[in-house]
Amino acid sequence: MESKDVEPNLYDRNCGSRQVLDRIGDRWSVLVVLTLADGVKRYSELAQRIDGVSQKMLTQTLRGLERDGLVSRTVHATVPPRVDYALTDLGRTLLPLLSSLQAWATGHLAEVEAARTQYDTRP
Amino acid sequence: MESKDVEPNLYDRNCGSRQVLDRIGDRWSVLVVLTLADGVKRYSELAQRIDGVSQKMLTQTLRGLERDGLVSRTVHATVPPRVDYALTDLGRTLLPLLSSLQAWATGHLAEVEAARTQYDTRP
Repeated sequence: MESKDVEPNLYDRNCGSRQVLDRIGDRWSVLVVLTLADGVKRYSELAQRIDGVSQKMLTQTLRGLERDGLVSRTVHATVPPRVDYALTDLGRTLLPLLSSLQAWATGHLAEVEAARTQYDTRP
Repeated sequence: MESKDVEPNLYDRNCGSRQVLDRIGDRWSVLVVLTLADGVKRYSELAQRIDGVSQKMLTQTLRGLERDGLVSRTVHATVPPRVDYALTDLGRTLLPLLSSLQAWATGHLAEVEAARTQYDTRP
């Protein structure tokens, strides 16, 4: 082969891995994937579970996750049509990672909040 | 105690853990913390390593990480003053997590890109 294989490099702005990082770091994507860890959910169930997400953001997040192959969308031919969302096999590989993120965020919350108070009140 | 202790809940928009998630999910924060994994760095070294970050974003990211107690900032009384950044002990607890994020993003890049192509070219 003439062209050399290049390792993905997160530090390079042109590397696709940086876009992937943006997806898996995005707050709404994280919350959607964690909610789907339980199993298939309808749009309305996701909207209810994830406090504060707008309809626009939820729709956009689901579309992004579907495009990235992390979530599947199934339309059932009922009246009105029922739309289900589920994790794909690829999406499922994210779960251990996102559970660790969740555990870190909840487990270190007190330390982060203490640091903020100290920063904000320093002379 | 009258007030009951409440478990941090990522799904609740008012819970601080959601803000913490935003920090540890943020692309520039992730790249700064990973760069500091090697050891102390100056501002200019961070700017050089992290391709595509603007001065404004890097300054803002470092300030946020410092405020959250993840990064320490040391000013040396030289002329011109030298400013060093390093991970704190709390910041260091993020490293296994962010290394996993990095590994996922680089390791699954081909699958995500294939899914995108399929999504974008479907009838």
